[in-house]
Amino acid sequence: MNRRHPHVLIGPGDDCALVTCSGETILTVDQVIEGRHVVAALGPSLIARKALARSLSDIAAMAGTPRWALVTGALPADLASRAGFGAADLCDALHHWAEHFSVPVVGGDLAGTSGPLVLTVTVGGAPHVARGPVRRSGAAPGDGLYVTGALGGSLESGRHATFAPRLSEAQALADLLGPRLTSMIDISDGLGRDAAHLARASGVGIEIDAERLPVHGDVHSPAPGSAWRCAAEDGEDYELCFTARGDVPALICGTPVTRVGAVVRGEGCRIRTPDGALYDAAKSGWDHPLGE
Amino acid sequence: MNRRHPHVLIGPGDDCALVTCSGETILTVDQVIEGRHVVAALGPSLIARKALARSLSDIAAMAGTPRWALVTGALPADLASRAGFGAADLCDALHHWAEHFSVPVVGGDLAGTSGPLVLTVTVGGAPHVARGPVRRSGAAPGDGLYVTGALGGSLESGRHATFAPRLSEAQALADLLGPRLTSMIDISDGLGRDAAHLARASGVGIEIDAERLPVHGDVHSPAPGSAWRCAAEDGEDYELCFTARGDVPALICGTPVTRVGAVVRGEGCRIRTPDGALYDAAKSGWDHPLGE
Repeated sequence: MNRRHPHVLIGPGDDCALVTCSGETILTVDQVIEGRHVVAALGPSLIARKALARSLSDIAAMAGTPRWALVTGALPADLASRAGFGAADLCDALHHWAEHFSVPVVGGDLAGTSGPLVLTVTVGGAPHVARGPVRRSGAAPGDGLYVTGALGGSLESGRHATFAPRLSEAQALADLLGPRLTSMIDISDGLGRDAAHLARASGVGIEIDAERLPVHGDVHSPAPGSAWRCAAEDGEDYELCFTARGDVPALICGTPVTRVGAVVRGEGCRIRTPDGALYDAAKSGWDHPLGE
Repeated sequence: MNRRHPHVLIGPGDDCALVTCSGETILTVDQVIEGRHVVAALGPSLIARKALARSLSDIAAMAGTPRWALVTGALPADLASRAGFGAADLCDALHHWAEHFSVPVVGGDLAGTSGPLVLTVTVGGAPHVARGPVRRSGAAPGDGLYVTGALGGSLESGRHATFAPRLSEAQALADLLGPRLTSMIDISDGLGRDAAHLARASGVGIEIDAERLPVHGDVHSPAPGSAWRCAAEDGEDYELCFTARGDVPALICGTPVTRVGAVVRGEGCRIRTPDGALYDAAKSGWDHPLGE
């Protein structure tokens, strides 16, 4: 038994792990692939951190609490010679960040590959005890559209590898708003495209007001007055995008919350630009093309 | 909700899946890497089958029942041109075999890679309702050592890609033997090395009698009288190796069960050869070097 995590009855080393669970479990898996989501020059610590944080961000998007993680690594034979780190460094880093994020790694598998490094992280968790799992499909006309934090420039700034999954913020929003928190997603493909996912899953339309977008302070927009475009289109922000009815606090767990649009009847997600034009947000966004 | 699998409350398409659970969950993850565990020439159906079956074999090794699976694929851009199949073929095959093995795929992730195909399959399940999870660590001196089926030649024969995980056999053994089923593992590294895992986890010694080994009928041994060596050393059999006290049936769910050795005081796993020599089984076995 794991003293720090008493729900872990069997950890790594047997054919399976064994964890206690009660009622319902939320489940997600994600991968980071060298050349696509990370480059080896990030080093083992940030690569391990990002692999865990991407899956934890999915748990946050449901307002859940992570309870365990399983990790696989497909490890290039030449990793040590070309990148200066190896399997042991990655394992140490995974355990370090797993402790940091309070999620025990209960098992996994490492094997050699002739290709790039691939890490996968599966996370199981508990849905919010009162609100239940916050799905993409609950948005209704009249709800506001909100985001946490600031958007844009994640890749250029390196934040794509250092972000903190918004677990506490999501849980606090579910505590506070309960059923008024109607839908939620984490922003990985870019606000426009992820808000379009909410619209499609909920069978509604969403309008985003470009002038309200909280653009990150270090965004260098390609043209004057177009910084909002980075906030709407850049990927890998890993902030929360949610819809809610009624009052929503401007700050949650110390993180700003900004109303950036509204849910309307209809379908699709449109962005109203500062000059009043509307364009289809589903066609904007980001396809994780790091290093390609 | 999934009508065929009512414990799946949210399936693919949201940030997380949601499943019901009760009490305890067993968890495992494994991967198949092109060039190491599979070659593209196997085709999408057998690759998908093996990816699922390897993880299900870990569930069998604990005498559990699989309840859900999560799948990731790192997909080479040139897969279609060089192997003649693509992401859609793999997805179809994964869903086909998941239905075949009665385990719903509740989520996953696909992304491009510049390297070989990598599939990972995470499976969660329920431990045996009466016996509980069968660990590697329960073997005691005086127990017999048993294997299901026949051993050896898995790679040459192609059985490494077509085996059926011994889920029913494991559950029936746990039903029948209860606490007399003292430890269990699935044979992936070769009987000698996997029995050595049982010995180490249990703090006991194991002696295997080479003359008792059920050698598969199509094993072509390199030298006369050495077929037992293929049975002891070849990997990827995915049969069950278990220890039990008292009577054990010779057939379970139609699959032969053979007593191949005994648990003794001490440590390590030794194989007694037909000429009476003893050698260290932990140094035998297989490291999945397919195609390398």
